[in-house]
Amino acid sequence: MHFDQLRLIRSPNIVPVSYRQLMARFGNARAALEALPDLIRRGGGKRVVLANEAAIAREFQFVQAFGARYVFIGDADYPYLLSHLDNAPPVICVKGNLELLACPAVALVGARNASAGACQFARQLAFELGQMGLSVVSGLARGIDTAAHAGSIESGTVAVIAGGIDVVYPPENRALQHAIAERGLLIAEQPPGTEPRARHFPYRNRIIAGVSAGTVVIEAAPKSGSLITARLAADAGLEVMAIPGSPLDPRSRGCNQLIREGATLVQNASEIAELISPLDNRILAPPVKWEPSIAVIADDSSHTERSAVIDRMGMTYVSVDELVRQSGSSPSTVQMVLLEFELAGKLERGAGGKVRLAT
Amino acid sequence: MHFDQLRLIRSPNIVPVSYRQLMARFGNARAALEALPDLIRRGGGKRVVLANEAAIAREFQFVQAFGARYVFIGDADYPYLLSHLDNAPPVICVKGNLELLACPAVALVGARNASAGACQFARQLAFELGQMGLSVVSGLARGIDTAAHAGSIESGTVAVIAGGIDVVYPPENRALQHAIAERGLLIAEQPPGTEPRARHFPYRNRIIAGVSAGTVVIEAAPKSGSLITARLAADAGLEVMAIPGSPLDPRSRGCNQLIREGATLVQNASEIAELISPLDNRILAPPVKWEPSIAVIADDSSHTERSAVIDRMGMTYVSVDELVRQSGSSPSTVQMVLLEFELAGKLERGAGGKVRLAT
Repeated sequence: MHFDQLRLIRSPNIVPVSYRQLMARFGNARAALEALPDLIRRGGGKRVVLANEAAIAREFQFVQAFGARYVFIGDADYPYLLSHLDNAPPVICVKGNLELLACPAVALVGARNASAGACQFARQLAFELGQMGLSVVSGLARGIDTAAHAGSIESGTVAVIAGGIDVVYPPENRALQHAIAERGLLIAEQPPGTEPRARHFPYRNRIIAGVSAGTVVIEAAPKSGSLITARLAADAGLEVMAIPGSPLDPRSRGCNQLIREGATLVQNASEIAELISPLDNRILAPPVKWEPSIAVIADDSSHTERSAVIDRMGMTYVSVDELVRQSGSSPSTVQMVLLEFELAGKLERGAGGKVRLAT
Repeated sequence: MHFDQLRLIRSPNIVPVSYRQLMARFGNARAALEALPDLIRRGGGKRVVLANEAAIAREFQFVQAFGARYVFIGDADYPYLLSHLDNAPPVICVKGNLELLACPAVALVGARNASAGACQFARQLAFELGQMGLSVVSGLARGIDTAAHAGSIESGTVAVIAGGIDVVYPPENRALQHAIAERGLLIAEQPPGTEPRARHFPYRNRIIAGVSAGTVVIEAAPKSGSLITARLAADAGLEVMAIPGSPLDPRSRGCNQLIREGATLVQNASEIAELISPLDNRILAPPVKWEPSIAVIADDSSHTERSAVIDRMGMTYVSVDELVRQSGSSPSTVQMVLLEFELAGKLERGAGGKVRLAT
């Protein structure tokens, strides 16, 4: 079963949303894989390529030999909060103690070039949060992330990395990354061997925010990845907190801006724990089984229906609701047409679930 | 007319609330003065003493000779926002340019022992707010207040002092106080000659907050007068803003706490002006005439009604609503009984309009 799931996930043009839609439509990964060629053809795809079975087998072997394992969405030990993201990763690769995400977790994120004072503060904060029984989540980057992991290595630290589970980054954190895999928890979404690229970091950030009941930002530039993480947390209905700073210190601008946008100003571990604890029950409750059928899609689509939707798409992003209105088709039919089109590599999804023709 | 008003204000046991109630009940100060002996006797007062007429005449002469003047609530040039406070001062003594309160004003307040950096910041902020056409209001204390006045002395600065209009405090601000009276606006509520005492500062703070469309706090200790000013502004429905600081700096605690309680985090003059400008029209609109009859009080009270209210009062504060419920009398009768009792010196008013027997 997991073999089929990973093969489906690694097949071309499968993203978290299309994985979810296929699982909802076909019930399991094998049925989805069998239907895939038809769907791709209906979407106008010329070449039908599924992930190579031997490669999938090698990937499982490598991960096992590396001492890591896969956790699929829908598995009992898949992080409960994470499964609630619209674009929750269909699979994560984990090495270490997954139990750390069975306790309430708080993300500490911030600038790579943070001041020494802020790094010391982050380390102490992570230590105190750990003493309060919270797991500390961060991204293993330089600066604040490193300090957060260092402060919570004894109590329970979770690092989400942008590349593959076996790829060390940044190089100076080699020893820390190994220590976290041994004593904490290391999480990767990209396949083994993947070198982290700029485009991977927003994906990593959504996992940092998504596994944590709350995200705390310490010293961040106004347009930094830390602020993206914070906004992802807010979008997912999770708690967003920020450590304030003097307007005379340019490094405070991102955090102060977040507070102006509605993040809660926090000054110490108790103020953070106060905002996290009400979620305990939600996290500690026996997880409800993951239900992929949130996006209702039609059983099939006719040529006429496909044309009605596709004729209304162009190079600019449009919302699915707008396509439903303009095409006169049902929402489930429009979703099916878009899925087929996406699997054929002809669709791009943007912010807010908007879609356009692939360039 | 102003003579009678000042005589009423300076008579024993007259506070802003009782002044307003008397004006509402009797229409003008002369009628209220004539009724006062009866009211005091009904409240059980033994000695009926009104303010000495010769002393009132001397006070007017002194203020005029000093180059100041009185502005009474209800006068066309009484500060419009201030008149909306429940406990608006019945009269203020002003020296300088009262027109400064016809433009939108912003209060800058903070710690007397603020850091040099914060004082420099306050001075620059006051300067920039002045350049944007805002008057800057503060309390002429050491530290942040002094910096705020210094930064806005050219553009328009308003100082509210705790003692009499002719009393310099603190001594090192003698030159600044004189400069403000000449080039800005100096406001005092206490009679000339009054040395500022601890109990006067909360009264001064309510005027600072009350004449300003918004109050900005810069570096304040958690239980400081600046925070009281901010809470008075919030209670009056005015904008409260605070400059954040690092949790590592103990001087930031008051401001960070205020932000946690709902004050808006601001970092510079533009962010302040943005919150103030929507009020422009409210301030610049032709003022509605002050209407004292907000608190409805009965024409008269019977002995039975008085006993029903007074028997239910003790040494602990009780709300007027509670007295109405327990006594079975109408709200206006209860207000009248309380007014008579207050004029007789037998009633104390506390926070939230609660009352108790005078000790």
